[in-house]
Amino acid sequence: MASMAPPPVVEHPIYQLIFSRRDVRRFHPRPIPQDVLKRILTAAHHAPSVGFMQPWNFIVIRDPQIKARVKQLFLAQNTQAARRFRGKRRELYGKLKLEGISEAPVNLCVTCDPRRFGPHVLGRNTVRRTDVYSTCLCIQNLWLAARAEGIGVGWVSILRNDRLKAILRIPSGIIPVAYLCVGYPVEFLSRPELEVAGWAPRLSVNHLIFSDRWGHRQPFQDGGEARWV
Amino acid sequence: MASMAPPPVVEHPIYQLIFSRRDVRRFHPRPIPQDVLKRILTAAHHAPSVGFMQPWNFIVIRDPQIKARVKQLFLAQNTQAARRFRGKRRELYGKLKLEGISEAPVNLCVTCDPRRFGPHVLGRNTVRRTDVYSTCLCIQNLWLAARAEGIGVGWVSILRNDRLKAILRIPSGIIPVAYLCVGYPVEFLSRPELEVAGWAPRLSVNHLIFSDRWGHRQPFQDGGEARWV
Repeated sequence: MASMAPPPVVEHPIYQLIFSRRDVRRFHPRPIPQDVLKRILTAAHHAPSVGFMQPWNFIVIRDPQIKARVKQLFLAQNTQAARRFRGKRRELYGKLKLEGISEAPVNLCVTCDPRRFGPHVLGRNTVRRTDVYSTCLCIQNLWLAARAEGIGVGWVSILRNDRLKAILRIPSGIIPVAYLCVGYPVEFLSRPELEVAGWAPRLSVNHLIFSDRWGHRQPFQDGGEARWV
Repeated sequence: MASMAPPPVVEHPIYQLIFSRRDVRRFHPRPIPQDVLKRILTAAHHAPSVGFMQPWNFIVIRDPQIKARVKQLFLAQNTQAARRFRGKRRELYGKLKLEGISEAPVNLCVTCDPRRFGPHVLGRNTVRRTDVYSTCLCIQNLWLAARAEGIGVGWVSILRNDRLKAILRIPSGIIPVAYLCVGYPVEFLSRPELEVAGWAPRLSVNHLIFSDRWGHRQPFQDGGEARWV
């Protein structure tokens, strides 16, 4: 099936969506229409989940006071995080915009309820955290549906979960998996911001693929990246 | 923005993909062309990742002997898993087909390398497992791209990671996140198999959405599911 010719340009819109999706940190204040938000959350809800447990909840945050408290949490944590880096790397870190909590019209906390349909969930006994994995799959559905609607999403991972739970009154058994900023973006960059800024390069997918066992490479016979990458 | 009228039918193909994606366990033996597999893996590789660390690898398994060993692993583990359920639930469990390891032309182990671009990864200090979360996002990209190609994916979560690592010679620091069966499906069911079988119902997305804090409901004013759900 492989040939020396480059593969044809792929037309299915999913590829364009996937390649143009970005982690967005700069937002217009324009609100997200209720029906658009509902479509995106419904797309999220149709992700696969272990034992069909659908463990997710969505806290839609619009209250500026709650956003301000989360922003404070980020700032405290980010000062600590910056200290991990040295020299030029630290300088670059300081210049990066890592969140859009206040500007984004909607913040979204996506949680996982490990007890849903429990205690025994089909398929979850061997690898316990497949409930959180399922919640991540739902987040990627959300991210792609948002992109299709022209809406940007940015994941803020520099937040302490215990404090975030206190702000959002999340019960002790529930796991906050993602805190997302959601809104119409100033722009969708053509490449990831961390790539453009020189923080890290895009790896070649060919180097990440093994055949039958770890470390065993059997290169794709077309010899390179697909044309539309 | 909300109204009493049902929202218009949404045309973007991403929704159709998301709603028609299934966890597939019944496969045709027909092989997956090399260029199609490459497209799907490239789509996976373009998922978002914490600090742009791209922590994933893909082990493409076609060797029948390796598949047979993984299948044995599943069978041993599944016997134990079945014991967690009682009565009618156990009976139903026994009737479910939970994997297609031998039949699927390709098995795929997706792993996470926590050391990539490390030790300090931008955004990963606060919630350490965001590297695994990123790997899950990549799996959902893969799942949707596969669906666009008419290819089914089934996640086998009933496998002990330590034994799977031994079979696939995965080094100690690497985390196997998903073991997937990939191939052309006998069919894409219109609803999830576990829903059809009566294992668990589809939840209403409205009940999963809170406003500003946990437990606070502010229903969408259209009052129900979007029309195309």
